[in-house]
Amino acid sequence: MSELKLEISISLDGFVAGPNQSEEHPLGEGGMRLHEWVFGLDAWRESHGKGAGEVNPSNEVVEERLVNIGANLMGRNMFGGGPGPWGDDPWNGWWGEEPPFHTPTFVVTHHEREPLVMQGGTTFFFVSDGIESALSQAKEAAGGQDVRLGGGADVAQQYLAAGLIDELQLNVVPVLLGDGARLLENVGTDLRLEPVKVVAMPDVTHVRYRVGK
Amino acid sequence: MSELKLEISISLDGFVAGPNQSEEHPLGEGGMRLHEWVFGLDAWRESHGKGAGEVNPSNEVVEERLVNIGANLMGRNMFGGGPGPWGDDPWNGWWGEEPPFHTPTFVVTHHEREPLVMQGGTTFFFVSDGIESALSQAKEAAGGQDVRLGGGADVAQQYLAAGLIDELQLNVVPVLLGDGARLLENVGTDLRLEPVKVVAMPDVTHVRYRVGK
Repeated sequence: MSELKLEISISLDGFVAGPNQSEEHPLGEGGMRLHEWVFGLDAWRESHGKGAGEVNPSNEVVEERLVNIGANLMGRNMFGGGPGPWGDDPWNGWWGEEPPFHTPTFVVTHHEREPLVMQGGTTFFFVSDGIESALSQAKEAAGGQDVRLGGGADVAQQYLAAGLIDELQLNVVPVLLGDGARLLENVGTDLRLEPVKVVAMPDVTHVRYRVGK
Repeated sequence: MSELKLEISISLDGFVAGPNQSEEHPLGEGGMRLHEWVFGLDAWRESHGKGAGEVNPSNEVVEERLVNIGANLMGRNMFGGGPGPWGDDPWNGWWGEEPPFHTPTFVVTHHEREPLVMQGGTTFFFVSDGIESALSQAKEAAGGQDVRLGGGADVAQQYLAAGLIDELQLNVVPVLLGDGARLLENVGTDLRLEPVKVVAMPDVTHVRYRVGK
């Protein structure tokens, strides 16, 4: 059965973005520190057209996250863009002409917009009638494969609180951000979480949880 | 050289105690869930006079935490006791006649009190002139061995913020408490943390960090 998987990098003090997110600092101040572990890895570099990179246990984690994924899902904050519906100059996401999703990708938003076809197999669909509708459309588009949920924190919290996430992989980065967007708040206290796989590296600890409610 | 080691159980959402701590719920509501992983283990049961228990990788973690420890250190909240200096009926800690510390044990407090000699090698010393004085006295009493810091969150934060902790072991329990006492806040953002050992179990993930500043 198609599952919803959330994989996200998080500081040891629980933040998935730093404070004061802005166009200059889309991940908030210090937020880029959560992702430094990935930039040198082979799987990340290859999928972003940057050539070969390091092959290590973290690289396997990055490879695994792309296996059997038939659609992607994200919130409006992760997709980005300026204030107002979409501004005068339409925003096409942070990722240039060929985003690294390579699947139908559903953006949960309050604003309707026509689908946006990018290069490399990514088409952005904008869903304005709620998280359950977005998930159901993503699962249908995934054709029996799984759906990968990116972020940001807000939409991830909504899916967690609704008990709709089947697998949560936290890439716990040993830094403190002190402030910003927390992942695990406003999600209630009754999620059942079972750690099923841990990969330990000097710069990140990957912990995969099965999630039930 | 004598080091200061903090080992503490923490919920996945970052709390080391639940909300509404009271005499009835000294660890706050739900806080006991952070410690359920330990109660069946051989090392814990033996050190608490409860006979044999399970031997597994978590048990090794519990055994290791007692190696080369020459003194213990804790805050006033962990030692416990009612309001006022010590109440009419002097409070001797949560642990009965033979506390499981078996070393000189220093309690950081605002209230002076004579040392309290318990059975089994634990003597509580009450230190009212600050965390650095308590650490220095504990290290001297440890005679070259290490000092183990328990909790609560408040005193642990003070030692972390001051850059005085050398090793931090988090026993990350896959539960959400939603509210309570956080460990990693008010500690600044410039601690350098390096994961050096990870032990993965279904009910807890132990991650040991070296800490620098």
